[in-house]
Amino acid sequence: MSTKQFGKTKAGTRVTMHDVAARAGVSQMTVSRVMRDAGAISPEVRKKVVKAAAEIGYVHNRLAGGMRTTTTPLVGVVVPTLQNRVFTEVLTGISDALATQGIRPVFGVSEYSLEAEEALVLDFLSWRPRGLVLAGLEHTDTVRQMIAAADIRVSEVMDMDGDPIMASFGVSQAEAGRDMARHMLDRGYRRIAYAASQGGRDKRAGKRFEAFAAVIRDAGGQIVDDITAEDPSSLVLGRQLTGTLLARSCPDAIYFSNDDLAGGGLMHCLAEGISVPKDVALAGFNGLSFLEALPQRITTTATPRYEIGRDAALFVADPSRPAPDGGRQDFGTRLIVGNTT
Amino acid sequence: MSTKQFGKTKAGTRVTMHDVAARAGVSQMTVSRVMRDAGAISPEVRKKVVKAAAEIGYVHNRLAGGMRTTTTPLVGVVVPTLQNRVFTEVLTGISDALATQGIRPVFGVSEYSLEAEEALVLDFLSWRPRGLVLAGLEHTDTVRQMIAAADIRVSEVMDMDGDPIMASFGVSQAEAGRDMARHMLDRGYRRIAYAASQGGRDKRAGKRFEAFAAVIRDAGGQIVDDITAEDPSSLVLGRQLTGTLLARSCPDAIYFSNDDLAGGGLMHCLAEGISVPKDVALAGFNGLSFLEALPQRITTTATPRYEIGRDAALFVADPSRPAPDGGRQDFGTRLIVGNTT
Repeated sequence: MSTKQFGKTKAGTRVTMHDVAARAGVSQMTVSRVMRDAGAISPEVRKKVVKAAAEIGYVHNRLAGGMRTTTTPLVGVVVPTLQNRVFTEVLTGISDALATQGIRPVFGVSEYSLEAEEALVLDFLSWRPRGLVLAGLEHTDTVRQMIAAADIRVSEVMDMDGDPIMASFGVSQAEAGRDMARHMLDRGYRRIAYAASQGGRDKRAGKRFEAFAAVIRDAGGQIVDDITAEDPSSLVLGRQLTGTLLARSCPDAIYFSNDDLAGGGLMHCLAEGISVPKDVALAGFNGLSFLEALPQRITTTATPRYEIGRDAALFVADPSRPAPDGGRQDFGTRLIVGNTT
Repeated sequence: MSTKQFGKTKAGTRVTMHDVAARAGVSQMTVSRVMRDAGAISPEVRKKVVKAAAEIGYVHNRLAGGMRTTTTPLVGVVVPTLQNRVFTEVLTGISDALATQGIRPVFGVSEYSLEAEEALVLDFLSWRPRGLVLAGLEHTDTVRQMIAAADIRVSEVMDMDGDPIMASFGVSQAEAGRDMARHMLDRGYRRIAYAASQGGRDKRAGKRFEAFAAVIRDAGGQIVDDITAEDPSSLVLGRQLTGTLLARSCPDAIYFSNDDLAGGGLMHCLAEGISVPKDVALAGFNGLSFLEALPQRITTTATPRYEIGRDAALFVADPSRPAPDGGRQDFGTRLIVGNTT
């Protein structure tokens, strides 16, 4: 059988759900349920229907249904980057939650640019998606106008410090920064350096550092140095930045904008024989699981990334789900004290 | 203005492309080009059109166009996991390449299960996508039948060792395994252990190890131990597996199925004061950039992940692009000799 003949009956007409039902020995309603991923279907029946459809070349068209209902079972997701595990974990939570609702994520990467986010939102809205998931609370005015016009649900993930469009799911970045500052002060550190990446475009890292620095200064401590690389975060970058900071300003502690950079800092110290925390203390942000594998446990702040993605996705996927109180669902952060501070 | 009134003109009718053109002071064709992301448009004109559309609440409907042309500018992508950088880099290549064609990726995660891949393909085909990108060359018969019936382009990424449905983009896993085996033999290692993850569901890792082991045995070497964890790969898992292998079978070298595991192996040795490669040699696979940050450079095999994703995406996105010769585009691998072997 050639590909061209596939998907046609012997009489040459397009195969229909009716043909699938006949071949699988089930009702047309059952075929429809399997194809729409709706209602409870036993795995055996599902397998029988999918096999029958494949054998006779039936392909369901969900877009036809999408046109009728004015939205499609797609959710547009804009992530700032795929280069660190934070957003791949958020994305996993989103993908898993949407799968339970028969909805798929369409995604794009903004590289922390609000203009790139705007272009993606324009494109996503043309699909009439069920909703959008955006990162952070900062967006262009045009994005806000487009979303208001489209009249769909939008979740904003990761940040609590600002006003959400509709519903935000995340943590207070400022509170996380203050917690870490208090911990460093408790341990007696007073000359603290800061290392970040992405040319300062990561607004959430900026909010953490601002709150962190205020607490340090209020207590009579000093931010002795502060370096922000243009490049994305990586262990390699963290290693380089640490070398630079230690050489030029002798801090007694370094606060990194995330765990990738902090991990690189520890690698620098291991390679150079610098004792942590005796010679310099190190702290990160996120509580990524790779930290558990390092020879020393880095002090950090844990964030529930998978859960944030999951709940944000459920809000846009299910119109009957109420918005969180005050438009904000604060997942809270947890200071993890390792042996690097 | 309330959300409800947005997207309607004063007379209460739905706003059209014509209204956007009038407000932006450009032709309707220009508005259409901007909305379809087609043709050369200056950034200034683009901005003017997008702003005008947002202000009057115009949302373009690409699905209507999709219905007419029988496929939509979406490409379905099935990745086995988002838990390691390999597939996030492939995905970045896919996303970047599709963006140049005005196409977006819809994606799902199979967790290395062919049944999960089948469910995702069934769902993706209901969108009438431009094409699909799948990982590896192993798929269920039902997936093959569904793809034949849908008559769309499919790229398979990462593997060369088998028959592609239409076009495969990747590297020879077997050749990579043989290269590493020859290197280990050259360095004098004869008692070699192997560590892997994902319960053996990663077929590509299996092909590498099989070819690796054959070369080692042919040369009179021994695979003294071989451990495959159920869990996904991580530094933490690599650290655990290394502890187990060293304790129970004293290998003189360990070949890991990827760099995450190998990196964990190095962390174990650093933490326990085990000298690498004097006490034990370590080698990984992929050439991930985080290796450059570690105190010792791990020997590995580099794979061009971004380029594989990019070319695979361009093949499905652009129907005028010919398939690679023989249906296979082999990107080749490169042995990177560090100081752990």
